[in-house]
Amino acid sequence: MPHRLTIHVRRPSKRKPFRAFVFEQPGNPLECVNLRSFAPLPNPRPGQVQLKMLMAPINPSDVNVLQGVYPFKPPPRTDLGTENALYVPGNEGVGVVVEVGNGVNSLKVGDRVALAMPQAGTWSNFLNIDAASLIPTGNRVTDVQAATMSQSPYGFDVAPKLCQLSGGDFVVQNGANSAVGIGLRTINLPNHDSLKQYLQDLGGDHVLTYEELGDPSIRDRVNGWTLGKPIRLALNCVSGKHTTSMMRLVGKDANLVSYGAMSKQPLSLPTSLFIFKNLTAHGFMLGTWFQRHSMDERRTVMQEIIGMLENGQIKEPAYEILPLRGNDVEITRTLQNVLSKLEEGSHGKKFILQFVD
Amino acid sequence: MPHRLTIHVRRPSKRKPFRAFVFEQPGNPLECVNLRSFAPLPNPRPGQVQLKMLMAPINPSDVNVLQGVYPFKPPPRTDLGTENALYVPGNEGVGVVVEVGNGVNSLKVGDRVALAMPQAGTWSNFLNIDAASLIPTGNRVTDVQAATMSQSPYGFDVAPKLCQLSGGDFVVQNGANSAVGIGLRTINLPNHDSLKQYLQDLGGDHVLTYEELGDPSIRDRVNGWTLGKPIRLALNCVSGKHTTSMMRLVGKDANLVSYGAMSKQPLSLPTSLFIFKNLTAHGFMLGTWFQRHSMDERRTVMQEIIGMLENGQIKEPAYEILPLRGNDVEITRTLQNVLSKLEEGSHGKKFILQFVD
Repeated sequence: MPHRLTIHVRRPSKRKPFRAFVFEQPGNPLECVNLRSFAPLPNPRPGQVQLKMLMAPINPSDVNVLQGVYPFKPPPRTDLGTENALYVPGNEGVGVVVEVGNGVNSLKVGDRVALAMPQAGTWSNFLNIDAASLIPTGNRVTDVQAATMSQSPYGFDVAPKLCQLSGGDFVVQNGANSAVGIGLRTINLPNHDSLKQYLQDLGGDHVLTYEELGDPSIRDRVNGWTLGKPIRLALNCVSGKHTTSMMRLVGKDANLVSYGAMSKQPLSLPTSLFIFKNLTAHGFMLGTWFQRHSMDERRTVMQEIIGMLENGQIKEPAYEILPLRGNDVEITRTLQNVLSKLEEGSHGKKFILQFVD
Repeated sequence: MPHRLTIHVRRPSKRKPFRAFVFEQPGNPLECVNLRSFAPLPNPRPGQVQLKMLMAPINPSDVNVLQGVYPFKPPPRTDLGTENALYVPGNEGVGVVVEVGNGVNSLKVGDRVALAMPQAGTWSNFLNIDAASLIPTGNRVTDVQAATMSQSPYGFDVAPKLCQLSGGDFVVQNGANSAVGIGLRTINLPNHDSLKQYLQDLGGDHVLTYEELGDPSIRDRVNGWTLGKPIRLALNCVSGKHTTSMMRLVGKDANLVSYGAMSKQPLSLPTSLFIFKNLTAHGFMLGTWFQRHSMDERRTVMQEIIGMLENGQIKEPAYEILPLRGNDVEITRTLQNVLSKLEEGSHGKKFILQFVD
């Protein structure tokens, strides 16, 4: 458990500058975002706490925000002493409470919390944020688990409810390099054949390459796995032709939930799938899910996810930690290097910014 | 009302041969189906009535049955004295009761009824069929209305319920040459620009050609029609690129219901429509709808449709009647001519077989 830490520091922002990745205009992620240092944050307002951030992942939706192609964007920051408003990216993360505003009884200094409010601006070293939007994580999940638990797992919580699956039911999914589980059994299609062994080690019940998917006998093979039980849920973050062929595997009355399009191709399906097989296709976006559920509902789901992480039912994704050290230019370069790698294509792991300074 | 008739004839099948379009194997519709004459039908069994058929439309799904590409097919007929079982196509139609089996109290000779049981084999001059599956049509709808009311209108009844629309809401639809209405306001995309005037005359609130749809200002124009109210239902029987562009018009949380794919192209949509706009895509097939609803539920919907036809809320589709006269070869040729026209492409009207012999 290398990344579990608890820090007891009072008011460090009084002594340390506020440092954050910021952008003024969306654009090419390699150019529009950089790390900047500002005056220390003020005290948290009533109802808020101040967090020292520990980790924040780089999610595909964060990159979309930088590109200006995501329908949500962070609130403009006009409190940083700059001529124009700046935007701090980052949807997910884990931090430790370092200062508690008036009227906050639910949290105390030293509590570790996960962020469950999209566009909170987690790519920063400190954060003043409403205490009510935070989820205490307890001590039994790692920092990485706490930092990454709010995004994908929601989808896996919500998608099965859409189609009322139960334990033992099969799910087929592509781009399958993320946390999966919840008692469902999975057939996984990795983006690269080289990831097959990795996915099997991660605990995917069955792993198929796209080449295998093209084999005429594949349905019989999959039927053998499912004992003939039709597959009623497909999860898609790829789209394009690979998703078209994945959908050959689903049975009648299936649901397709799309939450990404890494191929940058449209979702293209035979109309007969909808008419004759009664397929229903949905999308899932965390921001919309948040907007439509109360904080209590979100907290309930989050606690369920924490429970599943604690008892090993779900796992964190494969990850690589990026410690952020050095001056503004050096840290900016660290981020640019990773964004550049991500632009080249999927790496089968999540990059996580770690605020060590 | 040229095609409203009431006939009082007793046991005509005792005197007249049973004539039906039949096929032994699905295949090329121009070759696999022909009219044949057989011995008169036996008396209806208990619970059945015998119908003299008046009219039966040629629906796209009937052609799919002939081609063997539809997931339902008619029950095999082994009672016709042929070596191999034959199949009688035809899902919809209107007939008159000419004989009543034992135990049937709901219908009497002379009652006109619509068929509401898929694959009943309506392309025939007589039919023995369960009385419970028939819908008395009353006298205030025409034969054409009674013959065509069970297919498309179900979709229009069901689709709005999917997305809880209310009167005054807008629907956008392509292949829009069919009965539409139910208090919703429609934006119609005909398959051929030449149908624009025709559709406006039929009562479509707004008609757009695909060329107009490609115009950058089209959203503003449509917003003017809807007074900015987002469009939440799209009906598709075309698929392909025209449907991709139609979907530019829908707002957040919209539903797309596909019930056909006349372009023979896949349904291809940007994944962002699902993720960012929360689109849900469904299919609709009458056969499945029938399977999942009790006869009582079907009867209720059918009575609603009859009510809407009577008071003009919905209209029959544009149609052309094909009187079936002559010997088997001549009548077969009449059908082949029409199937050949249909193969060439949409004609914006429904062809209706009329049994005059």
